[in-house]
Amino acid sequence: MLIALLPGDGIGPEVIAQARRVLDVVVGDRLTYEEGLVGGAAYKAVGHPLPEATMEIARRADALLFGAVGDPDCDALERRLRPEQAILGLRAGLSLFANLRPAKLFPELADASALRPEVASAIDLVIVRETNGDVYFGEKGIRTNAAGRREGYDIMCYDEDEVSRIARVGFETARARRGKLCSVDKANVLETSQLWRDVVIEVSADYPDVQLSHMYVDNAAMQLVRNPGQFDVIVTGNLFGDILSDQASMCAGSIGMLPSATLDANNKGLYEPIHGSAPDIAGQGKANPLATILSAAMMLRYSLGLPAEADRIEAAVAKALAGGVRSPDLGGTHTTAQLGDAVLAAL
Amino acid sequence: MLIALLPGDGIGPEVIAQARRVLDVVVGDRLTYEEGLVGGAAYKAVGHPLPEATMEIARRADALLFGAVGDPDCDALERRLRPEQAILGLRAGLSLFANLRPAKLFPELADASALRPEVASAIDLVIVRETNGDVYFGEKGIRTNAAGRREGYDIMCYDEDEVSRIARVGFETARARRGKLCSVDKANVLETSQLWRDVVIEVSADYPDVQLSHMYVDNAAMQLVRNPGQFDVIVTGNLFGDILSDQASMCAGSIGMLPSATLDANNKGLYEPIHGSAPDIAGQGKANPLATILSAAMMLRYSLGLPAEADRIEAAVAKALAGGVRSPDLGGTHTTAQLGDAVLAAL
Ligand SMILES: CC(C)[C@H](C(=O)O)[C@@H](O)C(=O)O
Ligand SMILES: CC(C)[C@H](C(=O)O)[C@@H](O)C(=O)O
Repeated sequence: MLIALLPGDGIGPEVIAQARRVLDVVVGDRLTYEEGLVGGAAYKAVGHPLPEATMEIARRADALLFGAVGDPDCDALERRLRPEQAILGLRAGLSLFANLRPAKLFPELADASALRPEVASAIDLVIVRETNGDVYFGEKGIRTNAAGRREGYDIMCYDEDEVSRIARVGFETARARRGKLCSVDKANVLETSQLWRDVVIEVSADYPDVQLSHMYVDNAAMQLVRNPGQFDVIVTGNLFGDILSDQASMCAGSIGMLPSATLDANNKGLYEPIHGSAPDIAGQGKANPLATILSAAMMLRYSLGLPAEADRIEAAVAKALAGGVRSPDLGGTHTTAQLGDAVLAAL
Repeated sequence: MLIALLPGDGIGPEVIAQARRVLDVVVGDRLTYEEGLVGGAAYKAVGHPLPEATMEIARRADALLFGAVGDPDCDALERRLRPEQAILGLRAGLSLFANLRPAKLFPELADASALRPEVASAIDLVIVRETNGDVYFGEKGIRTNAAGRREGYDIMCYDEDEVSRIARVGFETARARRGKLCSVDKANVLETSQLWRDVVIEVSADYPDVQLSHMYVDNAAMQLVRNPGQFDVIVTGNLFGDILSDQASMCAGSIGMLPSATLDANNKGLYEPIHGSAPDIAGQGKANPLATILSAAMMLRYSLGLPAEADRIEAAVAKALAGGVRSPDLGGTHTTAQLGDAVLAAL
């Protein structure tokens, strides 16, 4: 099976290197790798954040393991050349529409959350975020309005097929967990949300065993702080999912710990840590590789049909943490490589 | 000076009644009141959530004191008749564009936040949210697309005048506080945000004494959990402000404590607690009236030029809390009226 390895910018290469060590031990030569340039690194090398050569590898691959993109040197570039376009381009170009972000506190890290331990330790949820539509991909631009003033605009929109497709992922995910799905929208203000809610309710007829609720996004942002333990699976659109999934991750402790998957309709997926490229600590051995190692485990489970191997990696991460290894984001002083070593030792 | 008193739905009338008692003691007959119907209560009485008779009072008034709107009986109504339209209609109809939401933990309530006490007690911020534009008020609807499928759409947009107007409120607010302004947008994806960021930077030339920073909304949602003490003033658009201000409020403890103001260009304003109508506890004496009493204090300060009286109310609320009075949302068993009594006693 072929893995597209996309390290990207900042701490991306460092964390990918540790995930690669773990994969080599756990699945060895059952996987082959081709490396592609993405993000600022790709722009600097070949003038585009998502070169066609990378897309070509990504199309052929069975799964993509992605580090991070983002480079302050590229901040002044026009939007289509900025590093972030790599991730948006991969999601759109490969129809990766279902972003899954589990948020769960490792009991060993109860002290790392800004939430009270009793609130944080109750977190065990998955956010299912749509990533091919919404205001991200609608028509947009800056124009001069009737009064001669500059005006920025972006069209938010979803059609019923896009909503039902992601709703089904939400229901299936809930069915495989505790059977509770909360759909988050802003139907009291947005027509896009009204259609979203209508379609989610229609789809729910096929999932009588799943308990469906609806919540406005402002309330969801409150409830994720007040009582995140109430959620099992949250399904939401691209923009609200962007905000809530980062918030939920932080409630569950360090963002250095949390993996994500973005799947197409056939479970081909892109796997990445939810943290960014962290240019301020790049190259210093301070990055926490566990989110990327856990992303590799998700890859084995969702795209490659190797659930036992995924379990093995996750157990090793828990064991490494129990053994006391801590990167700076977790309040410790261990290096990126030392965290990798600890996981390898635990395997 | 004339106050439009708009109790609304659910617990609205109960909390407004307590604020009225406090105002009677503090400013007595310097204020006169006219009551108007809003929300579900107005729909049930006269068929519209924001009747022209109410708008007429609101236009004449020097300030508006608002309870809450929202009534489950109205959930199935078409959007333009739903209770929430009252608040959107007042904001639009009276050009109330600057929503100010201070979030600060009363030291007495350090235990009420889901955040660790040391994180929560550092919160002392104001969110300045634009409330006349954005995806709230752009063209919107549900249409049939080229493929014959239902599609919901909402146009997000801001012009440079709308952005500079709210940016100035942000800079002025920061200047009167600790001199730090963080503008929140999603400029890596949205053109509306790109214009927003450009204009905020242009306006910053007039405020060299204010330290300006920019943050993406997903990161802001994280940072409000991780380290909310880093913020002084946040300025943002209508949609992001809706989400972040509710989140920030919850970080600062009970939403039963937090007031808000929404001002026009001449400091005429609508004052309301940030909590909703809470139909589940309406009429049971369980509502916390302190957010509304603190909203009344903001009204005296911002719209009525009575800062000493505002200080007096705020000090009385702190004293009442120090005396141990606690409504159910604060973990106690005191009634709405008992909280009002405690504030009156402290005055
Ligand atoms: C980098 C950015 C375009 C991206 C997004 O907004 O989707 C990121 O925040 C994410 O959540 O993966
Ligand atoms: C009731 C609703 C329309 C409103 C909003 O979204 O602005 C509310 O959530 C608020 O924040 O005042």
